[in-house]
Amino acid sequence: MSKGLTSRSEDYSQWYNELVAKADLAEHSAVRGCMVIKPYGYSIWEKMQAILDQKFKDTGHSNAYFPLFIPKSFFSKEASHVDGFATECAVVTHYRLKNDGTGNIIVDEEAKLEEELIVRPTSETIIWNTYKGWIESYRDLPILVNQWANVVRWEMRTRLFLRTAEFLWQEGHTAHATAEEAIEETERMLEVYADFAENYLALPVVRGKKTANERFAGALDTYCIEALMQDGKALQAGTSHFLGQNFAKAFDVKFTSKEGKQEYVWATSWGVSTRLMGALIMAHSDDQGLVLPPKLAPIQVVIVPINRGDEELQKITAVVDGIIKDLKTKGISVKYDDRDTQRPGFKFAEYEMKGVPLRLALGGRDLENKTIEIARRDTRTKETVAIENIADKVEQLLEEIQANIYQKAVQFRAENTVKVDSYDEFKQILDDKPGFVLAHWDGTPETEQKIKEETKATIRCIPLANELEEGVCIYSGKPSTQRVLFARAY
Amino acid sequence: MSKGLTSRSEDYSQWYNELVAKADLAEHSAVRGCMVIKPYGYSIWEKMQAILDQKFKDTGHSNAYFPLFIPKSFFSKEASHVDGFATECAVVTHYRLKNDGTGNIIVDEEAKLEEELIVRPTSETIIWNTYKGWIESYRDLPILVNQWANVVRWEMRTRLFLRTAEFLWQEGHTAHATAEEAIEETERMLEVYADFAENYLALPVVRGKKTANERFAGALDTYCIEALMQDGKALQAGTSHFLGQNFAKAFDVKFTSKEGKQEYVWATSWGVSTRLMGALIMAHSDDQGLVLPPKLAPIQVVIVPINRGDEELQKITAVVDGIIKDLKTKGISVKYDDRDTQRPGFKFAEYEMKGVPLRLALGGRDLENKTIEIARRDTRTKETVAIENIADKVEQLLEEIQANIYQKAVQFRAENTVKVDSYDEFKQILDDKPGFVLAHWDGTPETEQKIKEETKATIRCIPLANELEEGVCIYSGKPSTQRVLFARAY
Repeated sequence: MSKGLTSRSEDYSQWYNELVAKADLAEHSAVRGCMVIKPYGYSIWEKMQAILDQKFKDTGHSNAYFPLFIPKSFFSKEASHVDGFATECAVVTHYRLKNDGTGNIIVDEEAKLEEELIVRPTSETIIWNTYKGWIESYRDLPILVNQWANVVRWEMRTRLFLRTAEFLWQEGHTAHATAEEAIEETERMLEVYADFAENYLALPVVRGKKTANERFAGALDTYCIEALMQDGKALQAGTSHFLGQNFAKAFDVKFTSKEGKQEYVWATSWGVSTRLMGALIMAHSDDQGLVLPPKLAPIQVVIVPINRGDEELQKITAVVDGIIKDLKTKGISVKYDDRDTQRPGFKFAEYEMKGVPLRLALGGRDLENKTIEIARRDTRTKETVAIENIADKVEQLLEEIQANIYQKAVQFRAENTVKVDSYDEFKQILDDKPGFVLAHWDGTPETEQKIKEETKATIRCIPLANELEEGVCIYSGKPSTQRVLFARAY
Repeated sequence: MSKGLTSRSEDYSQWYNELVAKADLAEHSAVRGCMVIKPYGYSIWEKMQAILDQKFKDTGHSNAYFPLFIPKSFFSKEASHVDGFATECAVVTHYRLKNDGTGNIIVDEEAKLEEELIVRPTSETIIWNTYKGWIESYRDLPILVNQWANVVRWEMRTRLFLRTAEFLWQEGHTAHATAEEAIEETERMLEVYADFAENYLALPVVRGKKTANERFAGALDTYCIEALMQDGKALQAGTSHFLGQNFAKAFDVKFTSKEGKQEYVWATSWGVSTRLMGALIMAHSDDQGLVLPPKLAPIQVVIVPINRGDEELQKITAVVDGIIKDLKTKGISVKYDDRDTQRPGFKFAEYEMKGVPLRLALGGRDLENKTIEIARRDTRTKETVAIENIADKVEQLLEEIQANIYQKAVQFRAENTVKVDSYDEFKQILDDKPGFVLAHWDGTPETEQKIKEETKATIRCIPLANELEEGVCIYSGKPSTQRVLFARAY
């Protein structure tokens, strides 16, 4: 382990970059804007995938796979969709390289595509073109499909996990006979995301709807979950879109209803991405490194021997073997680090950096006393306890840690959510103590846009659980019926 | 269900295409050469992935993710590698579209990349460029990494699963301190593939090495597993490459050995792809549709009620609920199809087409007699048995089916593998009764190439388990020490 991290208070952005590197999560690749997700980072993403995938299946969805490439003409079919994505598309124009005769490899101009292909930034168009062939009658509905895939959106300013040209995600695409069913699906999947965020990521989220300005390109309504990071900036952690009949109309997808009428199909789409890794990191971690909720930790417990010599190590290992067996029986993932190439202090720092929730350390004196040292990553506290029933103790502590990390995040959000009633107050809070700001807004895109330009704060969402309240817009002074959630955001 | 399939004997190729469509496995997309993997097909692929992924982890590998794009210059660094892939590369040249002012969406010529990006056909180059930053000392070795990803190889003639421009695969990329270790890894992963093929796909395979002509571009040695399809054509089902120090040299990846010397790192790579879906289909299926080995069947048992009226259905369902519970306890996946929109005969044909290994049918008379009809997909036999202990019976039958499908394939291969000692005999057998042909070869690429040009048969591999045997090359008459495995291949 090289030296520690820049502290969050000193430079939050720098702290994040260093943490992603030092915890072995990801790194920039040789390709502009594209990341390499390293094995440890990927193992966290795999845990997220497994949990989400099960939730999708439990709610009736199946996985499928659609092409990476989308013909350019497909994009143009849904007007607002192409507007939303045209400026950030990677375009394939040729399908062959050749040797130029002098040893240089060049693009073969004779192998030019008749129609350019776009590397998918999202798959609504190619999927709805496919659904056209799958749907004839109401009996073919609903279609409840999800895809795990890579997508590309050409970003100029990138940050690992938060904003990369290529990222990994899942995109659900469903087709329904009625608007009601599609809206129900949109809301169901938002709740799946919210449940995942709160109960696995340990991240409290505000469920809400986006304003028209912030809607997905092609959606009638975009639902979202919004989380607050430790620097007071918001992060959109998942979106679920009610697409109405926009894509069905663009790709002419109709079905025969029970009544024998030809109707356009109703659609939803919903997605979360490797951006969740960024949310996970920024929500909980501290100046010593990553803090992982136990439910997403690839290694939940690490055991480090504190031995003098090989003979003592053998005795320790014999005891540890029993502990490992007990932990595995409980489904707890455990790693025993008996490398003799590194000292215990080095290992402690390494597992702190990597966010392993619990660390057990066992030395010669512990063997005599039948004790073991147990250290929590979240509170950085340690205690020496009896080895007997240590597996039960570990199991209970992992639950406590999961709950504690969540509670800390809930408390942080509570302390950093304020109601303001004037624009001056609004601007001041954004500069002095950034966080979620609940304020009245007149409901117009113009006001929203002006506030954004002047303060860099955006309306994160109109919370679903909002109480109606008479008020006046902080910017225009016009009447308003509810507060909306503002923040500066990632 | 529409009408049945073209028979295999009538037109094997047509049979395959129809089966892929009617069993809901995959379809061609609007993008040339790219497929849509439909939910049922994808669920089989997911089962393959889960089993293989566990095997990779059990042998010490971790997953990671590397960029979709590879800078063109990276390709040129390993000479034979670029030769192998240059003619089938999808090339990204621009990163933005724009409106041309008349409403047409066109490529924005101002957004031209300085260096073109290749959509990965395989990831050795980008990965070894990354490993350069990960490896300093022997302590950093071995690196045992796998990636699940999509890759693109621009194919002119495509067939669903067997040869598509985009396909899904896994690619393992490992780095080692010695040649011995790397070769050991290459052979270990070949054996993982062979074990998967035989014990899950129920597909006997020949383990062997490719000749120089057929090696992976950039490898010193390519190991492979070769399977025989029902039409007598061979299919390469997986490859494992010993890459020597080729990529380490191309990307300048050195490590400090224990002795303090700077040495180039040794490499392997290995992969299997959605091509395995093609192998699975072609190896076992019949004129009624797909035949799935139980270990890869998303639905292992389907239960169909044969009821007159709702009241009888309720009684049947009450019994079925108990059976489902017992089956699930045993970890058997079961579907109860009580749709009232389709008749039993339709359902029977549908599940035959989809290869569900066992079908249970329960009618009114069965209720009285406490019996149930059980039908095997592999043998298309059925019997009526007592409902009591039906779960045990099902469990036992699933094991029998798995073994039977494998044995049938073993027998088919035995019947279609012949030794020949003259070129005339060789050509005749390829035309009259195609299959694996074991024949002597003089070991030269020239002879191999000529045989290929004249007969379309290639050397599938030099079997690892080969017995040495004196002989003369069937083509050149020159001396040979062993027979090699020839076949026409997919």
